Amino acid sequence: MNVHQRRYEVLRRMVDRRLRTLIRRNRPADLHEACRYVLSAGGKRVRAVLVLLACEAVGGKARSALDAAVAVELMHNFTLVHDDIMDHAATRRGQPTVHTRWNVNHALLVGDVLLGFSYRQLLQTHTPHLDRALEIFTEGFIAVCEGQALDIEFEQRTDVTVREYFEMIAQKTGRLISTATELGALIGGGTERELDAFRRFGLLLGRAFQLQDDLLDVVAEEANFGKTIGGDILEGKKTFLLLKALERATGSQRTALMAVMKRKSAPRHHMPSTDEVKRITAIYRATGALDFARQRIRRDTERALRALSPLPESPARATLIWLAEMLVRRSS
Amino acid sequence: MNVHQRRYEVLRRMVDRRLRTLIRRNRPADLHEACRYVLSAGGKRVRAVLVLLACEAVGGKARSALDAAVAVELMHNFTLVHDDIMDHAATRRGQPTVHTRWNVNHALLVGDVLLGFSYRQLLQTHTPHLDRALEIFTEGFIAVCEGQALDIEFEQRTDVTVREYFEMIAQKTGRLISTATELGALIGGGTERELDAFRRFGLLLGRAFQLQDDLLDVVAEEANFGKTIGGDILEGKKTFLLLKALERATGSQRTALMAVMKRKSAPRHHMPSTDEVKRITAIYRATGALDFARQRIRRDTERALRALSPLPESPARATLIWLAEMLVRRSS
Repeated sequence: MNVHQRRYEVLRRMVDRRLRTLIRRNRPADLHEACRYVLSAGGKRVRAVLVLLACEAVGGKARSALDAAVAVELMHNFTLVHDDIMDHAATRRGQPTVHTRWNVNHALLVGDVLLGFSYRQLLQTHTPHLDRALEIFTEGFIAVCEGQALDIEFEQRTDVTVREYFEMIAQKTGRLISTATELGALIGGGTERELDAFRRFGLLLGRAFQLQDDLLDVVAEEANFGKTIGGDILEGKKTFLLLKALERATGSQRTALMAVMKRKSAPRHHMPSTDEVKRITAIYRATGALDFARQRIRRDTERALRALSPLPESPARATLIWLAEMLVRRSS
Repeated sequence: MNVHQRRYEVLRRMVDRRLRTLIRRNRPADLHEACRYVLSAGGKRVRAVLVLLACEAVGGKARSALDAAVAVELMHNFTLVHDDIMDHAATRRGQPTVHTRWNVNHALLVGDVLLGFSYRQLLQTHTPHLDRALEIFTEGFIAVCEGQALDIEFEQRTDVTVREYFEMIAQKTGRLISTATELGALIGGGTERELDAFRRFGLLLGRAFQLQDDLLDVVAEEANFGKTIGGDILEGKKTFLLLKALERATGSQRTALMAVMKRKSAPRHHMPSTDEVKRITAIYRATGALDFARQRIRRDTERALRALSPLPESPARATLIWLAEMLVRRSS
């Protein structure tokens, strides 16, 4: 374990400890049990750790941003619980999703109350900029909902462009990550320029992260990634790979890709057709979409790291750089 | 129209105007269209008007609480959209519910984003007490979720007591109304004693309001109430009437009531069995549960109005008293 991994673990454990003590009340028992179930399922706590590191990188104490970090993590878990309902996902982090273990109504309510807890937590933050923190948090929350709505809208369409895809992931994935980094910088007492740097860093990192996710769907080891290889293909998800390959494909390749485009989202527990995944992946490779995605990830990551250049050198900044590189190079 | 009705209408129109201009952005189109659909379906805007009147009653300007009033109304509409999913309700305010008109996924997301808009709106409020306003709002939001979870938990149980019922409606219905009145008083610059009075007023009024709702289910005119007479009975809802009647029933009356208790919630579009509704209503009457509910409504309303006695006399206070009496005497 290097120095950055150790620091990451220290911060992740701070977040986990707080999350564990969070859901104390026992009434209604079912609701709080399900909240504990969600929050104790593990997860890398990337967004929360980003809040803490951004706070430190502008000269603040990580501890002062812990409530905000936990708030962001709760918000993230709210989106996961509701998204899993919408996607009919059967498992998450290797365990049954809330609506599978309980039912849809329960999962709906668990998501709602996690969001309530996230605001409660954020309101505990001691900062002269609490109003602004709440504004950043709320605008991030709305953007994430709008991004998810776009994602759902795309399911019904067969003419989605790469540009629209970027707009969607900027809201659905990028915005929560930039909310995390911007909040951390705000609470740490960052200057406007630093806040700006962190907003930019978060958006670019979020984009690279999502592209890596798209890529892992077709190239990851099944055991590592914890979900079906080619799941996006089988569900007809409009990923960067699909849209980019379509821009360049002709003839029979185009026909095969359009069949994926036209597919309506199916429950994830359907058995994958390995042949089709292989065929489509080969088209992604042949059209250059895979290489394009890799280049784009590299470029966005470099731009994200450059966004941090106005910051003074510090251990936190170094760990942020390490974390960003690790996230977009991950194989699971 | 008397002076209070006129004042109510003026305030309601203020709220409606703001709600209409609220959802400007058009992307994603579907999401915002559904938000407009929910917000333009009418409704009495009782909670929003309570915010404005409470603000005035402590000496503030109604306009200064308009953002908070709209926030409370948005929060209320969020709960309606999500509750309608959970209850499988086909119509609301005489039009198809969001999940009926669109689908469950869409309704889920519409609820989420309405909640985001509610925080965005509240954050517009100019008040030195914004942090406290957000805390009142957030704790109200969490309580409403917990109340809804209890309500769902009750569906699975056949041993719910009247006491537990009161606990549930205090959270599910009372809390949002007391959130409204307390917020209004806070923004209007009320003293701690006045805030306390308004919190108490809201909780008691909310309880009376919910009991009246239970009562109207069995005694209202179908055309007025806009939903099936005896719907609660047919769905096996644990209302005050059912629980109170059970406390007192014996023999065949008890058997009939237990059959309702054991019923699992059914979609509302099922055809009512008029005979059963008549029979259960007769038991409610014979056991004194109907009279009990009426007495309780009267007593809670009187206590709610007494809670307002620390306030100086004013037109707003008079309109609040009128409104409280109207709400619990309503026939639809």
